[in-house]
Amino acid sequence: MPKLYDLAGAEEDRRFSPYCWRIKMALAHKGIEPETVPWRFTDKEAIEFSGQTRVPVLVDGENVVSDSWRIANYLEDRFSDRPSLFGGPGGRGAARFIASWADTVLQPAIARLIVADIHAHLHERDRKYFRATREKALGGSLEEICADRDDRVVKFRETDLRPLRATLTEQPYLGGESPTYADYSVFGGFQWARAVSVFRLLADGDPIAEWRHRMLELHGRLAGKAPGYAV
Amino acid sequence: MPKLYDLAGAEEDRRFSPYCWRIKMALAHKGIEPETVPWRFTDKEAIEFSGQTRVPVLVDGENVVSDSWRIANYLEDRFSDRPSLFGGPGGRGAARFIASWADTVLQPAIARLIVADIHAHLHERDRKYFRATREKALGGSLEEICADRDDRVVKFRETDLRPLRATLTEQPYLGGESPTYADYSVFGGFQWARAVSVFRLLADGDPIAEWRHRMLELHGRLAGKAPGYAV
Repeated sequence: MPKLYDLAGAEEDRRFSPYCWRIKMALAHKGIEPETVPWRFTDKEAIEFSGQTRVPVLVDGENVVSDSWRIANYLEDRFSDRPSLFGGPGGRGAARFIASWADTVLQPAIARLIVADIHAHLHERDRKYFRATREKALGGSLEEICADRDDRVVKFRETDLRPLRATLTEQPYLGGESPTYADYSVFGGFQWARAVSVFRLLADGDPIAEWRHRMLELHGRLAGKAPGYAV
Repeated sequence: MPKLYDLAGAEEDRRFSPYCWRIKMALAHKGIEPETVPWRFTDKEAIEFSGQTRVPVLVDGENVVSDSWRIANYLEDRFSDRPSLFGGPGGRGAARFIASWADTVLQPAIARLIVADIHAHLHERDRKYFRATREKALGGSLEEICADRDDRVVKFRETDLRPLRATLTEQPYLGGESPTYADYSVFGGFQWARAVSVFRLLADGDPIAEWRHRMLELHGRLAGKAPGYAV
């Protein structure tokens, strides 16, 4: 059984990393149930064997793979007889753009809406590290950054989410008729928020909210039954 | 031979519509050389048979298809024995997101950088219509909108193009190892600018500029040999 190092909060079963969620959904898509190992930001030594300092880290027999995009490609190639994560070579190429959009547009925007809620759910030993690194990266205190989120969410919904909404108005998944890694890449950001925050990222009736609901139901409600807040 | 109604400027061979470029590249990908019919914004009657008022319009025997996304899907299904435009079902789904990103992020940003140059290249009979509709949509005179483009292009390059650059730093095409309709969707916006403007959208050495160069060379330099400015 493959082992996945998975970011956890103060409660061991509150798993909130968007990148780990991409991989947990991808593993389920391939019909693989990993052993997940709860990991905290400051547990750098526990994953030193991977040659880098971040999760997800997948250990599959002799193979150690880090970085969510590399893990997804590893799973697609290693389990090529299982349902495809990308739906063909063109899907693999295009999924990288969609994952890059999640990395550079979606997740940075979500971070500024919920970062104080992440901090509130961290294990005690992670708090100082998280506050110091995130306040430096975001240029302000976590509380200040989230203070005007009721205003900022308007632009998030109307502008940042526009290409996602345009697509999901026309088709049920980013992968088309069924979900692919493109969906998991984007869903990771929403599941990150759901795990730690009561803040409503989406308005009722938004086609993106309907898609998120479908994603929560996939693979035996893998994401829907995980600890988080009603969204 | 299919017929494609294609937006033209004052000079009949200056073809600048980003949506028509998507389809000209898609047709070339399928090995089809259409008869292109030059069309201007005010020639609404010429395409009345299509039941709507915009180009591209493809006429293939008895079939009349409008809207670039619908045309691309028509071509993929009608010429399924030719090289795939999407590279599989997952690629078709994901290409819709990438086309939506081009529609809602890339092209609106490019429009605000070059709209006065488009106007300068229009046929006399289109100018009044174009100025009235675009100034209403963009909320200012065409000249005012482009006046601070040297400043705005910095944000365009650094922020708007970020997911595109992240992808093309890692792989040669949005489709992966070879171009798909995802590439044509995004390239349309750059070719639109190239047809009418000397303004430099991209800095030297940008991986996006290198990709654009590859795109200009594809299919016998279809886009590269078309009237436009050095970029």
